[in-house]
Amino acid sequence: MINKVLVANRGEIAVRIIRACRELNIESVAVYSEADKEALHVQLADEAYCIGPTASKDSYLNFTNIISVAKLTDCDGIHPGYGFLAENSDFAELCRECNITFIGPSPEAISKMGTKDVARETMREAGVPIVPGSKGIVKDADEAVKLADSMGYPVIIKATAGGGGKGIRVAKTEEDLVKGVNITQQEAMTAFGNPGVYIEKFIEDFRHVEIQVLADNFGNVIHLGERDCTIQRRLQKLIEETPSPALNEEIRAQMGEAAVKAAKAVDYTGAGTVEFIYDYNNQSFYFMEMNTRIQVEHPVTEQVTGVDLIKEQIKVASNEKLSLSQEEVTFTGWAMECRINAENPEKNFMPSAGRIEMYLPPGGLGVRVDSAAYPGYMIPPYYDSMIAKVITYGATREETISRMKRALSEFVVEGVHTTIPFHLKLLEHETFVGGEFNTKFLEKYEVMKS
Amino acid sequence: MINKVLVANRGEIAVRIIRACRELNIESVAVYSEADKEALHVQLADEAYCIGPTASKDSYLNFTNIISVAKLTDCDGIHPGYGFLAENSDFAELCRECNITFIGPSPEAISKMGTKDVARETMREAGVPIVPGSKGIVKDADEAVKLADSMGYPVIIKATAGGGGKGIRVAKTEEDLVKGVNITQQEAMTAFGNPGVYIEKFIEDFRHVEIQVLADNFGNVIHLGERDCTIQRRLQKLIEETPSPALNEEIRAQMGEAAVKAAKAVDYTGAGTVEFIYDYNNQSFYFMEMNTRIQVEHPVTEQVTGVDLIKEQIKVASNEKLSLSQEEVTFTGWAMECRINAENPEKNFMPSAGRIEMYLPPGGLGVRVDSAAYPGYMIPPYYDSMIAKVITYGATREETISRMKRALSEFVVEGVHTTIPFHLKLLEHETFVGGEFNTKFLEKYEVMKS
Repeated sequence: MINKVLVANRGEIAVRIIRACRELNIESVAVYSEADKEALHVQLADEAYCIGPTASKDSYLNFTNIISVAKLTDCDGIHPGYGFLAENSDFAELCRECNITFIGPSPEAISKMGTKDVARETMREAGVPIVPGSKGIVKDADEAVKLADSMGYPVIIKATAGGGGKGIRVAKTEEDLVKGVNITQQEAMTAFGNPGVYIEKFIEDFRHVEIQVLADNFGNVIHLGERDCTIQRRLQKLIEETPSPALNEEIRAQMGEAAVKAAKAVDYTGAGTVEFIYDYNNQSFYFMEMNTRIQVEHPVTEQVTGVDLIKEQIKVASNEKLSLSQEEVTFTGWAMECRINAENPEKNFMPSAGRIEMYLPPGGLGVRVDSAAYPGYMIPPYYDSMIAKVITYGATREETISRMKRALSEFVVEGVHTTIPFHLKLLEHETFVGGEFNTKFLEKYEVMKS
Repeated sequence: MINKVLVANRGEIAVRIIRACRELNIESVAVYSEADKEALHVQLADEAYCIGPTASKDSYLNFTNIISVAKLTDCDGIHPGYGFLAENSDFAELCRECNITFIGPSPEAISKMGTKDVARETMREAGVPIVPGSKGIVKDADEAVKLADSMGYPVIIKATAGGGGKGIRVAKTEEDLVKGVNITQQEAMTAFGNPGVYIEKFIEDFRHVEIQVLADNFGNVIHLGERDCTIQRRLQKLIEETPSPALNEEIRAQMGEAAVKAAKAVDYTGAGTVEFIYDYNNQSFYFMEMNTRIQVEHPVTEQVTGVDLIKEQIKVASNEKLSLSQEEVTFTGWAMECRINAENPEKNFMPSAGRIEMYLPPGGLGVRVDSAAYPGYMIPPYYDSMIAKVITYGATREETISRMKRALSEFVVEGVHTTIPFHLKLLEHETFVGGEFNTKFLEKYEVMKS
């Protein structure tokens, strides 16, 4: 078993990983930027070291400093969390060279799934359904136009190196497409150092449904069911739930199998998520991308399956077998997560950094809070604005929603604006409650005015 | 369905009930003593009314004021929580007369189970195993001595009106017994207004194992498995868990059946708990008493069964059928509760009232906190010293214990002493971890010095 883990992250996910380490009797080492010296993950870890100035590139993305701390503190594992270095194959490769276990998949798997056109082709070969579109990247706008003519508009332009909602553009006409390909190529070059773009048929009305997979070094690959992440604002997920209110048992089983196939195609190990576009009008689903890391929304899966995903990651990285087989995976009840951000929903979700004067998370039956906030905590303006994940679970979707409303209504966060009022309105919205909606929900409804 | 509930209690259980009401869309009315005007239950309820001065007898036990508030605010239900009026059949009777639903069993059931010698005889007739002892109350010390001679010492003297560890005395010799009967009769007269005592064979080495039952007005009675509450200090439970590490499947099934039989014998309705002495040396169990109310330790049952016991109480009181049958009850994983008191475990558990300067409850996977504390809360010295219940759950007992240690180690309560350090030591104790212990555990081991 890994003995000591450096947690190469901050915020709630760093806290989450430290908690799992503690429960496994593994020592944990926190790292932090100068802006984060009062952070909760620094207080909770067994040891903590500053790895540089505030800017992420100088601290949380600083390979050398992170590896140095790991070496100096005798860590034999590094957990990257999500974001920052989590899907950086170079970093995973460097860990390997330094003889430190990167708690995640191999650099090769990260790389294959991180390059979107490669991922697409790999999935095509593995028999995982993909959206109709270009085979690999398109040379230029001309090639894109020819393809679009054959598929019909609208089409979507995607940077092969993009992800998390970045480097994506929809084209409804030829003019849009020509302009879009050129701009996306330029932007992708600037943002990701790789100008490659590909195009796909744009499915307008769909749900975002993803499958959690787990794989070990002995060829065992299982899935832990789906998460429905259809409620998004500008491609950022806001509410996630499992099961999906939109899937029937047949589609659910097919999607699970497709996800396992996807993971096997890249010799995946550890925890990963295969994201699908679910075209409910045609009851079809298509591979969107694979996130080769733990995800923000992993807790909802934990609540209905009873599996501790971070512990599984650590165990797999320690060369243990998965603790359960596909047949042993059971699903009980319903779980939902609301991401609470320090933003002002009345002012177009403007970030609201500052000191949390009063803080009291909700409690009681069916409520889990993953957060790095505390009374007096100064939210720095430099990083992600998420300050807490509130997860509720219950016997039914109805109970889980009513519990979420109860939990959010008692959640005290004073001193900064939060998105709690937004979530409370959304949870009352009859279309949300009805369960029939797509990713355009927040474009269509002005939740804050309802 | 009941429309509006007056919560005739304070502290965490009042908060627990208000939360359940909110999730069911039922309005809640808090009541409070003058000492409790800043209490969390007052802040969370839809309405709140002062019902009298600090002393419990003038406020939380004040029938007239409580019923008046209920009437003035149009409450059609009163939830008594535990303690205070929860097992007061006169109060339940008064509610009935005032046409307000008492959320609990009938006054008759409360009364039968509250009078211990009557309960004992009722159980004997129903075929529930009882400890060998007197048939009904003993007339005097002479009668007790004759009985004890036939059973052998030690014997236990119990006030029929006692409960919760009060009005109980062990006699190892005839001299002890004569003295004990006389003193207990006098004390019981003073404390409970009823001098009746009975005697039983004293089983020295046993575990406290209890069964949660639920019953509706349609004759359906189910049980939700056991809770092991063997870890006690001066007859006050400190840690409870389910399942019990000491039961095998056969005993578990028998105990469940006996509890259902006990509930049926008094036409029980709502949530109740049948407590048993488990004589593990002989794999025998005996009826101890029935608590005709929700119990402090109810959350562990909720965590492994997924049943919201407070909601079930409200539904049954609203004349609904139980939401599940015995066959539908499932048990998943392991759950444990530590009662955190504002007491100094280094100074013989001396109560430690005062202001909580800093407060941050633990969170994350597998952790539930039921508490009425908050940053800045002034713990009044007049009531119960329990400030939080930390409940953890996991796949196994081992995981649940490691999670409890993790949770307690991150629980921040500054400004008052708490029993957190005591629990942390106890959870490390090899005998506790081993799972083989009896109710004398804390007499036998000096946990704070280990």
